[in-house]
Amino acid sequence: MKKVVGFGEIMLRMSPAGYYKFSQVDEFKVNYTGAEANVCVALSATGMTAEYVTKVPDNDIARCAIATMRKFGVGVRHVVYGGDRLGSYYLERGASQRPSKVIYDRKYSSISMAKREEFDWETILEGVDAFHFTGITVALGENLPGICLDACKVAKKKGVQVFCDLNYRKNLWTPEQAQHIMPEIVANVDVLVGNEEDAEKVLGVKAANSDVAKGELDRESYVDVARQLSEKYGLKTVAFTLRTSISASDNNWAGIIYADKNAYFSKKYKMHIVDRVGGGDSFAAGLIYAICNGYDHQKTINFAVAASCLKHSIELDFNLSTVSEIEALMGGDGSGRVQR
Amino acid sequence: MKKVVGFGEIMLRMSPAGYYKFSQVDEFKVNYTGAEANVCVALSATGMTAEYVTKVPDNDIARCAIATMRKFGVGVRHVVYGGDRLGSYYLERGASQRPSKVIYDRKYSSISMAKREEFDWETILEGVDAFHFTGITVALGENLPGICLDACKVAKKKGVQVFCDLNYRKNLWTPEQAQHIMPEIVANVDVLVGNEEDAEKVLGVKAANSDVAKGELDRESYVDVARQLSEKYGLKTVAFTLRTSISASDNNWAGIIYADKNAYFSKKYKMHIVDRVGGGDSFAAGLIYAICNGYDHQKTINFAVAASCLKHSIELDFNLSTVSEIEALMGGDGSGRVQR
Amino acid sequence: MKKVVGFGEIMLRMSPAGYYKFSQVDEFKVNYTGAEANVCVALSATGMTAEYVTKVPDNDIARCAIATMRKFGVGVRHVVYGGDRLGSYYLERGASQRPSKVIYDRKYSSISMAKREEFDWETILEGVDAFHFTGITVALGENLPGICLDACKVAKKKGVQVFCDLNYRKNLWTPEQAQHIMPEIVANVDVLVGNEEDAEKVLGVKAANSDVAKGELDRESYVDVARQLSEKYGLKTVAFTLRTSISASDNNWAGIIYADKNAYFSKKYKMHIVDRVGGGDSFAAGLIYAICNGYDHQKTINFAVAASCLKHSIELDFNLSTVSEIEALMGGDGSGRVQR
Amino acid sequence: MKKVVGFGEIMLRMSPAGYYKFSQVDEFKVNYTGAEANVCVALSATGMTAEYVTKVPDNDIARCAIATMRKFGVGVRHVVYGGDRLGSYYLERGASQRPSKVIYDRKYSSISMAKREEFDWETILEGVDAFHFTGITVALGENLPGICLDACKVAKKKGVQVFCDLNYRKNLWTPEQAQHIMPEIVANVDVLVGNEEDAEKVLGVKAANSDVAKGELDRESYVDVARQLSEKYGLKTVAFTLRTSISASDNNWAGIIYADKNAYFSKKYKMHIVDRVGGGDSFAAGLIYAICNGYDHQKTINFAVAASCLKHSIELDFNLSTVSEIEALMGGDGSGRVQR
Amino acid sequence: MKKVVGFGEIMLRMSPAGYYKFSQVDEFKVNYTGAEANVCVALSATGMTAEYVTKVPDNDIARCAIATMRKFGVGVRHVVYGGDRLGSYYLERGASQRPSKVIYDRKYSSISMAKREEFDWETILEGVDAFHFTGITVALGENLPGICLDACKVAKKKGVQVFCDLNYRKNLWTPEQAQHIMPEIVANVDVLVGNEEDAEKVLGVKAANSDVAKGELDRESYVDVARQLSEKYGLKTVAFTLRTSISASDNNWAGIIYADKNAYFSKKYKMHIVDRVGGGDSFAAGLIYAICNGYDHQKTINFAVAASCLKHSIELDFNLSTVSEIEALMGGDGSGRVQR
Amino acid sequence: MKKVVGFGEIMLRMSPAGYYKFSQVDEFKVNYTGAEANVCVALSATGMTAEYVTKVPDNDIARCAIATMRKFGVGVRHVVYGGDRLGSYYLERGASQRPSKVIYDRKYSSISMAKREEFDWETILEGVDAFHFTGITVALGENLPGICLDACKVAKKKGVQVFCDLNYRKNLWTPEQAQHIMPEIVANVDVLVGNEEDAEKVLGVKAANSDVAKGELDRESYVDVARQLSEKYGLKTVAFTLRTSISASDNNWAGIIYADKNAYFSKKYKMHIVDRVGGGDSFAAGLIYAICNGYDHQKTINFAVAASCLKHSIELDFNLSTVSEIEALMGGDGSGRVQR
Repeated sequence: MKKVVGFGEIMLRMSPAGYYKFSQVDEFKVNYTGAEANVCVALSATGMTAEYVTKVPDNDIARCAIATMRKFGVGVRHVVYGGDRLGSYYLERGASQRPSKVIYDRKYSSISMAKREEFDWETILEGVDAFHFTGITVALGENLPGICLDACKVAKKKGVQVFCDLNYRKNLWTPEQAQHIMPEIVANVDVLVGNEEDAEKVLGVKAANSDVAKGELDRESYVDVARQLSEKYGLKTVAFTLRTSISASDNNWAGIIYADKNAYFSKKYKMHIVDRVGGGDSFAAGLIYAICNGYDHQKTINFAVAASCLKHSIELDFNLSTVSEIEALMGGDGSGRVQR
Repeated sequence: MKKVVGFGEIMLRMSPAGYYKFSQVDEFKVNYTGAEANVCVALSATGMTAEYVTKVPDNDIARCAIATMRKFGVGVRHVVYGGDRLGSYYLERGASQRPSKVIYDRKYSSISMAKREEFDWETILEGVDAFHFTGITVALGENLPGICLDACKVAKKKGVQVFCDLNYRKNLWTPEQAQHIMPEIVANVDVLVGNEEDAEKVLGVKAANSDVAKGELDRESYVDVARQLSEKYGLKTVAFTLRTSISASDNNWAGIIYADKNAYFSKKYKMHIVDRVGGGDSFAAGLIYAICNGYDHQKTINFAVAASCLKHSIELDFNLSTVSEIEALMGGDGSGRVQR
Repeated sequence: MKKVVGFGEIMLRMSPAGYYKFSQVDEFKVNYTGAEANVCVALSATGMTAEYVTKVPDNDIARCAIATMRKFGVGVRHVVYGGDRLGSYYLERGASQRPSKVIYDRKYSSISMAKREEFDWETILEGVDAFHFTGITVALGENLPGICLDACKVAKKKGVQVFCDLNYRKNLWTPEQAQHIMPEIVANVDVLVGNEEDAEKVLGVKAANSDVAKGELDRESYVDVARQLSEKYGLKTVAFTLRTSISASDNNWAGIIYADKNAYFSKKYKMHIVDRVGGGDSFAAGLIYAICNGYDHQKTINFAVAASCLKHSIELDFNLSTVSEIEALMGGDGSGRVQR
Repeated sequence: MKKVVGFGEIMLRMSPAGYYKFSQVDEFKVNYTGAEANVCVALSATGMTAEYVTKVPDNDIARCAIATMRKFGVGVRHVVYGGDRLGSYYLERGASQRPSKVIYDRKYSSISMAKREEFDWETILEGVDAFHFTGITVALGENLPGICLDACKVAKKKGVQVFCDLNYRKNLWTPEQAQHIMPEIVANVDVLVGNEEDAEKVLGVKAANSDVAKGELDRESYVDVARQLSEKYGLKTVAFTLRTSISASDNNWAGIIYADKNAYFSKKYKMHIVDRVGGGDSFAAGLIYAICNGYDHQKTINFAVAASCLKHSIELDFNLSTVSEIEALMGGDGSGRVQR
Repeated sequence: MKKVVGFGEIMLRMSPAGYYKFSQVDEFKVNYTGAEANVCVALSATGMTAEYVTKVPDNDIARCAIATMRKFGVGVRHVVYGGDRLGSYYLERGASQRPSKVIYDRKYSSISMAKREEFDWETILEGVDAFHFTGITVALGENLPGICLDACKVAKKKGVQVFCDLNYRKNLWTPEQAQHIMPEIVANVDVLVGNEEDAEKVLGVKAANSDVAKGELDRESYVDVARQLSEKYGLKTVAFTLRTSISASDNNWAGIIYADKNAYFSKKYKMHIVDRVGGGDSFAAGLIYAICNGYDHQKTINFAVAASCLKHSIELDFNLSTVSEIEALMGGDGSGRVQR
Repeated sequence: MKKVVGFGEIMLRMSPAGYYKFSQVDEFKVNYTGAEANVCVALSATGMTAEYVTKVPDNDIARCAIATMRKFGVGVRHVVYGGDRLGSYYLERGASQRPSKVIYDRKYSSISMAKREEFDWETILEGVDAFHFTGITVALGENLPGICLDACKVAKKKGVQVFCDLNYRKNLWTPEQAQHIMPEIVANVDVLVGNEEDAEKVLGVKAANSDVAKGELDRESYVDVARQLSEKYGLKTVAFTLRTSISASDNNWAGIIYADKNAYFSKKYKMHIVDRVGGGDSFAAGLIYAICNGYDHQKTINFAVAASCLKHSIELDFNLSTVSEIEALMGGDGSGRVQR
């Protein structure tokens, strides 16, 4: 089986049940999540071997986070223990015209204050097929760009494919800061994942005719941005999710992959949303699975989009879909008939 | 009041809340259900007298199942106690493109290993107007075809109308097995309920232009199948549900009845689904109510479809709608305005 | 900050979780609510100063109701304690074709048996900008018309704007009773809120071409009714909600305001509903906020409709939306994208 | 099987989970209960045939109450429908030094306003072995003493044994009112159930050396009170529960029966309490079972006390213990070892 | 009514239900609490006017904390908004031999990084009778000793009584640090609250014969320590809680007050514990109530101990007992009989 | 780190919350458990390396069971997939005089029908220090004695210490059956675990003066039984738990170890019980830990008893206590003071 390593922050997520607002409840559903953790779990669900690397404090709550990764089959051998706190965030789920709301409390987390020497990438990446991280991780703290760069370089040296999801987060850094730091890192990446907005915010590459809030999609502008990125950073593959937000309850979902100088679009799914958090991560996981397993470009984007379409129907951040479930949807059966 | 007897298996159903997957929860919602149990409860909610016959083990969990029937007004005087276990199943509710998933654990259940002499149909069916069972019950175990046949024959003798819902379940038997056993039984039935797929799998009668997964409906093919069945088995009435699965969250729902050599279609409802399990059973119950109360054919199919449309908006397997609620929907008010 | 006083009944609401029916659960979600209480809370969420006046029994459950108002920032200084009981109601939430069902148990409540001398309006309305009550309050009991009239007259004298939401409830009085009592009260009102059905039932003013159950809207008939009301009762402003019920799960939502001899329509929102109870109250609150803050007529109706659109996506009866959230929707962003 | 009829009020009970206070929760556990309803359920659990008579409003919440009785095997054929409301009460469970708190909202309930002609005791009591009611029922409303007296007299005539539990409730009537009404009723009773405090409050018969709050028990004073009652009202049997409240969490529990001019004491149990509401009712049910089944006096009191001891370990108001479970405790095994 | 001001940190507390460990649950019960917040709520429950001062971040979670204070009647007019985060802690409830476990995540909280100029004590303490803070607040961050000293000095000047609960927390500072800072502050205090361990850790005053873990209490040693503190710091009153931990489930509880050169002991309660967190705070609140209302020394310690005894039977951190409930226990009724 | 392998059945446990009976709830708490699974998890919590071997069906529910083992750090590399079903059981928790009740539904489970050739003990036990199984596993089905014997013999050959917990279950086999099969197996065991009752039922070795139901302990009789077993089967060590059941809520707990011809008793703990299921398994785990880590006999029994004492205060079947928590209790601190 192919083996992937993910590196990033795992957080405690707290969310009211259903569509309640924070002030209406006295219980929070608790789960443990993070962009790269989500990718590792999704890959483990497909049968791949996934190993997750992070730094967490040495306390019982952090151990719950690590136990969750283990529960879903992800290796945690290289996790570093220390520092002050586990980052956390509060999520209030939106519906219809009301957007979901996220309140981060991730400042001063153990990983955000980690040091370069705490991660021995030579050991971690030995025998690995793919390495995955996101722009979030780079933005977490002052040493993180260096740590990510270390990892990318060791990966390159060892022939490990590097996947990077741009994942712009405005509360972590400004476009200026991102554009100052990310180019050097992206230059060490093989497969770049993101969306049009990320490309503009993180790398300053802009699409002509898109308006995210309006949800209008222009196929040509996507191809154009992907081509620019590919050429500028020498990327093997660029993949974008194409989300049209009709409301917090209903989205359209598709994807594009640009590789070998050609663009491939997936079909578009109309989704009634259960939980959209982690949707992008499940797309990245689908890509990694497809590319590591040698799918052709069209099948790759089809797989990644079908996988992440299913994620939107699952509670919480993890995509727990199996390959056969993803393939059933790719094969055209989105009727949702009971499987019995 | 008219009196109906249902015969079949009652099971413990365990399901995660909302749209969680099995591995994401540590609590299961528990209810007690089965095709014929659902029919009996739905009929009791309309004010009919319903009596449920089954065999369950002599333990507290089985007694919970029986107490549930009693709670909803269903008689349990003829229930047989004994055997090893109560069958159970696990249900993971789907949404959007993700189908619901059922895991059965019903093998070795008390009813599946019941014996012919345990049911005294002469007593059970005395003074009864209708008898209802499904193809599931026939398929449960080696003695069940005989038990069902016994019941049908006593019913015939006593002038009790026999309703049979084909309800094909691929994990219980193959089409070959079904088609070997069911014809003899169906020949003793008055009203046959099912859908196009059941007709093909259970009785080998095929519709020309239907593709279930695609959800395309061709009115003529339904009439054709119903006519074939009616003629082949000398049935008074054949009724089909016509479900179009747009997704796990949205379905269209209609029905057809074929009787006196004519076909009658109901209107079609666009449903946003709460719980679709038990939808077919509530259609059968609607039919039984309408036929026992002497409705004409058009009103019969309208009633059965409206009743089962409402079921899809109710949690769990039971249709708890009253006649006046069903009539309000038949009368055209599907606006869902608050009743206060 | 502008200050508003609301007067009416606060009740204990009990509802099963999700879409369960009363007979399927053994827990009720409990909250405390009432038309004017909902308005006060919504206004407090916008930053206005709100004071709520009612009468409740002197027991721990009533104190929970009052504590809830306090929690959401509403003043409760003038609440009267005494009488037998807190009114309550049971709500079974509908979905798709199944309507929500309300069972009232509000008879003999403390407020419904209150006496005229228990409310000192001279003190209560001192320094206040707006006074709000509804037709429900008038209908509660024999002394309530007099109490409301007292309040209106003191308000008039002090230059307090009077807002009245007609809110017809068929279980509290007949159209005949309403039309006997309300005209005198409405003659003391500045801003009348309601919908077409209320206008007909409570004041006998009828629109030509509307059919509520069918949900057909005719813009001209609304303008006509509003104009009639405005002229007949000398009202500064008349505002209507325009709801089209597609099903219990999906509604369209808009509004009209008639003022200075002109009508202004809002845009129409397609809503996927979380909880529609309190939708009308949140519209009234939006109006009060906009009018008290001097918005022009078009912006007023836009604000009130956007505010109440958001309410439909929030659980329970309160609109907890902030002004900036309402303005984001007014500004056109109904995409529901995650705010993080 | 012996058959018993119970008559009284069934209420909706709402209680916070665990030891939370009303103001700390937003969910209430809901169950349906009443002194005589509890007795009927407990008797049904022992295998006796129990029929429950009451009057409830014709709405869905009242139907839930009736369905609950049916679920636990109690007949509801003679229930009268009508009136305004189902009584309810709120229960906050105490612990250690903090007492449980009950807030009643039972005024104006359907049964409290019932009329004498609504109950056809000739039919209801035909073929019955025992009739049971409590002082609570007598105190509910103006017509209730007459209704209870009617029932007692018909019972006498038909040879039905009459059981009455005094059950003084200070919020329903004063000792003066009780002592004015109850003597005539008690004169028609065969078996009187209660405790020392009831005897004093309801019938003015006082024990010399008891102080309820201190929990001091004096065996002689109990015998003395029982003998007085027996002689004064010509009772066949008088039975008292002897509760010593160490705290809300720990009680001692015993009982005495006085019959044929002799007193018989049970052993005393030290109980760690789960829910003490319904403890007295389960004692009454134990008595009825034992007497109807011809137990001797010593075995009767042993059975009733063991049964009601078990009730204190069960959540909510019903005793669901079987005869074999009660006999196991009577036989001396209170070790609580796992039964597997 | 007397008015008290409390100053300190309010935190989000997250705890698994019942006796589950963190790793066994996926929901946390959420409440908002802190030593001085608990005192303010307890005083509000007695009818006193309480105002709470703190600094919290400007986000929805912090607003939930403030809304909770408002719900329980506590004023929040002087709360300062700003900074990074709301402190939080995780609580795993112990039982029997297993201790409760607290994991703090309060570092970098808004209040811990507050500045001296953010609190205008002249305004805050105007017209106030009592000021309360704890050693926890002093230990939170570098500016807190100064802020507390400011408050104490203004209080002294205005004749406001100052109450300080020593509340040693080993994860916030060492005994050396505490003993370096606290003496100057305690010198400005009127009433000192704590226990023997606090006195030693925070102020270096040691009792001869006490062993906390063993739970042995020596009355003389308590008097001795209290006398030393009183004389050394010129305190009007010193009050100690006397807790004997038999297990996590059962504690004995008493108190001593030293004032006017005499010591007064309360009676000792044997408590079966529901939630012991906040027990000390409810004792401090009881003291403040009693002293502000002019109780004599013996009645003061009786009241404070009875109040805090009741707290141990209530879930979460707040004591919600009323004066009449506390007086009932003081009066000797700890029988826990149902109040109905 | 020392490595242990456990072999047995893992089941789905379903239990009502708190002290509710099966018929009172509609949700079951779900966890995955089994005697040897419990031991593996407890050992993993102490830091040992544990590997769990079983056979489960290839479905999602069984995968939840396996994921649970992984979550708590237990290896599942050798689990065999296949067969019909996962065994399950229902647990109704008792309190005070009411015993807990277990209803097994484990017949026909995958492991009970496993075959000898499915387990490759040579591979499984390579490099392992300890092997653990129980009498339950031997009793599950016709091939299990052979499978267990295979494992024991391979273990012997490889120098792996063999631990066997007798664990008599009357619903799996009779004493006659057990005594026919177990002697051959026990002859291959190093450390035998159990209690007096097990010794008599499984091996026919009887203690003179014990009466389990009465909970009377006679130290000499325990020593006598342990000596007999040790001599008869050539055991290195025999260890017994000594439980005195005061009630379902309160037990005393101690242990004895017999080794090197001497007996060592632990101290006795008075426990207030949270969940006693798994208590014996946690004792076995404590023994394994202590013996594998070379503790002397006295410290071994002290550790095993302290560990299992803590288990009784934890919900569900797993002991999640760490070595330092166990050592704190061994060191004498059972005061349950909050750890913060």
